[in-house]
Amino acid sequence: MRERLDSRIDRLQRRCVAEPGVLSLAGGLPAPQTFPMEALAHALGRAGSDALQYDWPEGREALRAFVAERLQRRGASVEADQVLITNGAQQALDIAVQIGCRHSRGIRVPRACYPGALELFAARGLQLVSEDAPADTSYVMPVVENPTGIAVPRPALDALLQGDGYVIEDDAYAELRFDGRTPPPLLATKPERVFYVGTFSKTLCPGLRVGWLVTPRRFRRAARRAKRLIDLQANTLAQCVLEQYLAENDFEQRLTWLRRFYAERAAALVRALRRRLPSVSFVEPEGGFSVWAVTEERGDDVEFLATALRYGVSVDPGRDFRPSGDSEPIAFRLAFSSLPPERMDEAVARLARAFRSFARAHRHTERQRRAV
Amino acid sequence: MRERLDSRIDRLQRRCVAEPGVLSLAGGLPAPQTFPMEALAHALGRAGSDALQYDWPEGREALRAFVAERLQRRGASVEADQVLITNGAQQALDIAVQIGCRHSRGIRVPRACYPGALELFAARGLQLVSEDAPADTSYVMPVVENPTGIAVPRPALDALLQGDGYVIEDDAYAELRFDGRTPPPLLATKPERVFYVGTFSKTLCPGLRVGWLVTPRRFRRAARRAKRLIDLQANTLAQCVLEQYLAENDFEQRLTWLRRFYAERAAALVRALRRRLPSVSFVEPEGGFSVWAVTEERGDDVEFLATALRYGVSVDPGRDFRPSGDSEPIAFRLAFSSLPPERMDEAVARLARAFRSFARAHRHTERQRRAV
Repeated sequence: MRERLDSRIDRLQRRCVAEPGVLSLAGGLPAPQTFPMEALAHALGRAGSDALQYDWPEGREALRAFVAERLQRRGASVEADQVLITNGAQQALDIAVQIGCRHSRGIRVPRACYPGALELFAARGLQLVSEDAPADTSYVMPVVENPTGIAVPRPALDALLQGDGYVIEDDAYAELRFDGRTPPPLLATKPERVFYVGTFSKTLCPGLRVGWLVTPRRFRRAARRAKRLIDLQANTLAQCVLEQYLAENDFEQRLTWLRRFYAERAAALVRALRRRLPSVSFVEPEGGFSVWAVTEERGDDVEFLATALRYGVSVDPGRDFRPSGDSEPIAFRLAFSSLPPERMDEAVARLARAFRSFARAHRHTERQRRAV
Repeated sequence: MRERLDSRIDRLQRRCVAEPGVLSLAGGLPAPQTFPMEALAHALGRAGSDALQYDWPEGREALRAFVAERLQRRGASVEADQVLITNGAQQALDIAVQIGCRHSRGIRVPRACYPGALELFAARGLQLVSEDAPADTSYVMPVVENPTGIAVPRPALDALLQGDGYVIEDDAYAELRFDGRTPPPLLATKPERVFYVGTFSKTLCPGLRVGWLVTPRRFRRAARRAKRLIDLQANTLAQCVLEQYLAENDFEQRLTWLRRFYAERAAALVRALRRRLPSVSFVEPEGGFSVWAVTEERGDDVEFLATALRYGVSVDPGRDFRPSGDSEPIAFRLAFSSLPPERMDEAVARLARAFRSFARAHRHTERQRRAV
């Protein structure tokens, strides 16, 4: 199902990118104006010729130490040698699955879940299990979920920690909670059962493709070996640029600024939704890049995306985020991350018009179907 | 076997890198002085802010067009949309295996083979089959083999093309034939059965981690999907730098220079071997970074590496290159790529002393063993 449909969505999304008139609430890309272009260019100018050579599978030492040190500050006892540098969070997930889920049959996932994780788990032969049912392994974004933009309730996390399965903890947006209160990772409580995934893609820029995986100690060698088999090592150039950048710049200060930047966009989207699309359900985001909007409408959400594009706005159809792949009830992810706040109201106004048009057309088709 | 032993080799190799007095004939790294540091830095300065953003799974268009165009000049009818940009050749191999060998049980490999391929194939559940036996799929480096540095004989390639299995064609060193005569790839003859792997790691620098996979047309979507699942996309920064670099610089001219650069090192190694280690068998390399040296000695080649390190020289033990993982007869890869020609004689002199010492010690142990 997943495989068959994604080409339709892919085609529509590519068309949308090619049309500059479309206001995008899709994709969940970070805002390019937040990329520290000059500082990174400066960092590159100071990176040595090592930056172009082969390096070890586990990644550069200073970078691993940086990751470990930040996790220590959040209460996890992590050493640099447990950190594996990966090509973004997606590869960290893949390696976690390859080494940690070899004997798992199912993986418990949120009701609305990051599609890259769902697709990966399914492709690697894991059954997607709803979050109430038991499973060998669980995937969770405790601090800020994608697509919902909110934290997982504490009781649910406690239940997870009391189980004896592995947990893949995806903390991609954890440092982008608008209130800046980043709690200890699950890794701090159960280091022997947590595969911890992080990335610079949301806090710095995704084009470097630098993320990380922290594994339980006994999987350290397996993780390095998996990385070497897969692609030898992460990009040396990007790692050297990052090392230099992090030595020269105040990352905390950047995060403070970023949280305000995205909080403003989130607030603009929330205002516009309440004003223009009051029939849609969503929870006000606590961080991250998006909200998860659920409607009471039925029908084909990819058709809805096609309608939205005709009205000049794009969204991510809900089926991609559902373990079942269900289109109904129609839902969508609305990303506020890449649209300037002053365009938000216009984007949602277009979305509201598209939604009304889609609902009318869908009801019309349904009536005709019943009449036949 | 493979998995158990590689930690010993890994430990020794890491120790060797940490000891600056050791002359390295190991690793097969490109010479850092060949890296076009300034031109790449200049290219980076001109790359846009796209360089830091997400991009499509298949990679940047200009880069794919560059790869396709070079293959067209060698007689293959390849379009840019068949090219997938990967994290170096290793990931291209992994994707080829994931999408092309799903129903294969075995893969035919050379008698002396690139270890990253052997390890990967074995880890993905493929049986390693000797090059004379039939198998569903074959792995081959037709133009310049690693570790031998020579071409596969034409009759063997013809036999391969007459079969009906898939062929993974690894052309990593093809453009580094010293005579510059790069023949048409197998891809040109059997585009529907060849997965073609290439990389900039040897011709520009490995730190960018940019390689490519050309798949038969019907696998194009599967390849993109696999890439998206694995890590979303290749490093945008490295791709943009490369695009810019290739637009601003004469790549052919660079290759001509590189071939001379490495041919000089190869000649120095060959001279030293003939002078210092006449008992060792090898074939004069036609290109690439290394020769494959086979001795008549028996014993543990990792022990031999430990001995060599004590004598101040490093090599890659032969077992890593053998599908069987056999240590005997003792063999090793000697890479001439990263050692200046004027140090080559001294490196081989050390190797010869280490080899004599090892052989003496081994014979002594054998005699004692027989006496007991």
